Amino acid sequence: MPELPDPKGFLFSTASAAIKKPGRKDIALIYSESPAVCAATFTTNKIKGAPVKVSIEKIKSGKARAIVVNSGNSNVATGAQGMKDAHEMCSLVSRHMGIKEDSVYVSSTGVIGVPLPMDRIRPALMELAGTIGKSSPDEVAQAIMTTDTFYKIFKKKIKVAGKTGIILGIAKGSGMIAPNMATMLSFIMTDIAVERTALKKALKHAVDLSFNRITIDGDMSTSDTAMVMANGLAGNPPVKYGDENFNVFAKALDTVAYELSKMVAVDGEGASKLIEVEVKGAKTEKDALKGALAIANSNLVKTAVYGADVNWGRVICAVGYSGISLLEEKIDIYFGNVKLAEKGVSTGKDELAVDELKKKNVKITVHLNIGKAGAKALTCDLTEGYVKINAVYKT
Amino acid sequence: MPELPDPKGFLFSTASAAIKKPGRKDIALIYSESPAVCAATFTTNKIKGAPVKVSIEKIKSGKARAIVVNSGNSNVATGAQGMKDAHEMCSLVSRHMGIKEDSVYVSSTGVIGVPLPMDRIRPALMELAGTIGKSSPDEVAQAIMTTDTFYKIFKKKIKVAGKTGIILGIAKGSGMIAPNMATMLSFIMTDIAVERTALKKALKHAVDLSFNRITIDGDMSTSDTAMVMANGLAGNPPVKYGDENFNVFAKALDTVAYELSKMVAVDGEGASKLIEVEVKGAKTEKDALKGALAIANSNLVKTAVYGADVNWGRVICAVGYSGISLLEEKIDIYFGNVKLAEKGVSTGKDELAVDELKKKNVKITVHLNIGKAGAKALTCDLTEGYVKINAVYKT
Repeated sequence: MPELPDPKGFLFSTASAAIKKPGRKDIALIYSESPAVCAATFTTNKIKGAPVKVSIEKIKSGKARAIVVNSGNSNVATGAQGMKDAHEMCSLVSRHMGIKEDSVYVSSTGVIGVPLPMDRIRPALMELAGTIGKSSPDEVAQAIMTTDTFYKIFKKKIKVAGKTGIILGIAKGSGMIAPNMATMLSFIMTDIAVERTALKKALKHAVDLSFNRITIDGDMSTSDTAMVMANGLAGNPPVKYGDENFNVFAKALDTVAYELSKMVAVDGEGASKLIEVEVKGAKTEKDALKGALAIANSNLVKTAVYGADVNWGRVICAVGYSGISLLEEKIDIYFGNVKLAEKGVSTGKDELAVDELKKKNVKITVHLNIGKAGAKALTCDLTEGYVKINAVYKT
Repeated sequence: MPELPDPKGFLFSTASAAIKKPGRKDIALIYSESPAVCAATFTTNKIKGAPVKVSIEKIKSGKARAIVVNSGNSNVATGAQGMKDAHEMCSLVSRHMGIKEDSVYVSSTGVIGVPLPMDRIRPALMELAGTIGKSSPDEVAQAIMTTDTFYKIFKKKIKVAGKTGIILGIAKGSGMIAPNMATMLSFIMTDIAVERTALKKALKHAVDLSFNRITIDGDMSTSDTAMVMANGLAGNPPVKYGDENFNVFAKALDTVAYELSKMVAVDGEGASKLIEVEVKGAKTEKDALKGALAIANSNLVKTAVYGADVNWGRVICAVGYSGISLLEEKIDIYFGNVKLAEKGVSTGKDELAVDELKKKNVKITVHLNIGKAGAKALTCDLTEGYVKINAVYKT
């Protein structure tokens, strides 16, 4: 979306600290010229990276000026040294930029259990401060990539109380996405003024409908983070939770997060197709989501989609073990628009669905026909490429 | 184990019904010359195959004479016709063998959602009855294979109250094993006399320590079945629950089930290695098992083992999202005998552990150091071969 400007007052820089390997930009600084209201959601994994621990403490203030992000090393399972390093990164940015330390956040993604190369990070932080404003958001999105095959950025224009602002989101893929734990990071910047409570509520809503549809809570990485900064430079009266502008802002934030999520899903490691799973006619939305995620997480479903093998039996099986309320004799299953099972039994149309599985965007719909709730989940197919990438990740 | 005889009074036959493809034996009959006491455990999936539904009804009697098993088609999601077909298979065996219909069980494994080819199964059932006793247990184990690469059989001699008997177990692999839902079938025959309650208790114990360590309850296939028949022809006074012989019998049954489980795990689809995961020092055994299964189910751990990539970070991450009680700063992690993490932090010995991951039998141990409970889980590595097999399974 090159036609849209960046949100006012946010500056960026990138540098190379040779964190995992030399030769690429692997550290970035996001900086707001004026203090921003800030909200974030973090992994629910009991093992949390040092940067996550540090950020969880700081976010209580609800204020932010800068986020420093590196790829190549997640600073997870690094003990007291890891905490010291995370704090030092914030402290150095604070000093170089002349801003308060508690307004500087840190985020890291990459290998687990290896101490950060602070001797190379320290000069890179100096460089980031010295070159602030010299990089574009695209370059930041590139610097935070790990096994992503393309960088992920999305912008949206929004009008609040007569003032125009921009919401800019960048993300890095969770690699593996649905089952398990590679890291998803997303940083969203806006110049719209938003009050703290409103920003928190809007972010939670957006994340629930987007990133949480591709990453199961219980299977989250040690570093997953979604953070939003609103610096208010658009000049609108601050959006309040419950006022008429809240829905406008929240809806725009939903869109930014969902578009980033789709990019993350389609860029799953080794993936060749995006799979959108929808469960309809469930008793509750919770059931629908649980069923959709069970299907999206099934290696057998994901490999069948990869091979364009019309194996809807694996879909009904996954719904069966998801533990949700259902009646076998009421279940309809569709691949694309082709109904493969009706009332739990084959319609004999397997042949017709092969083309649906050959599309780049595959839709699987399960209609439980016992209620009115529905939910979607996003995933990708499982390929030999996935295995190749993950068999040699660390070395 | 060719040196051990078969248990007395069990006869076998196999035939070809060209259920999925022509050219191989794909249906088998297991028959006891005298009525046997019987116990079974079945899948907890809400979608159950017709044969499972039929068997769940029959097992209430606790008696059995025969089990007819086919591969190539699981008769799941086949509606009323599927139930009719499952009943007809029992009914025809009953008629041909001259035994009561309620003593005949049926079990099917293979593709989901396709009606059984009853026109080819009917004559095969006639052939099975006509050739009973002409096949060996090995041939039965071969006939029930789907994507298994070798047939699975284990025998154990046992002495109860001065009488010698044999426990014979056969199994087919769950293909994918840990995550998800390919079918695990196991049929265990013994000539030791065992009372119903004792048989049920012993089977449950054995399954909990074996098959349930490779297949998570919630992720069970629609057809998973473990069944044991005890015909008493060894002539011992029946083993009672709580008497001195119970432990002898139960321990032997545990061994048979565990040995079969190891074969199932090592024969996971596309697998090149067996992975034994142990969690120690947990607060409860339930926690230890949950942690071990989370690690065993992690695609990232499984691919890392495949590639001999010493990525213990993925192990600590999986324990972290398993939801069990833990303290990061107390966790030790071993690959084989090499300690890679101590108190949650790297020991710097990654290089030394590469050879441990190159073994055919890889051991991953996590010591939580917060309690005294432990548990093991079995799985295999995840390879390109797995993806290849499952991308074209149905077609």
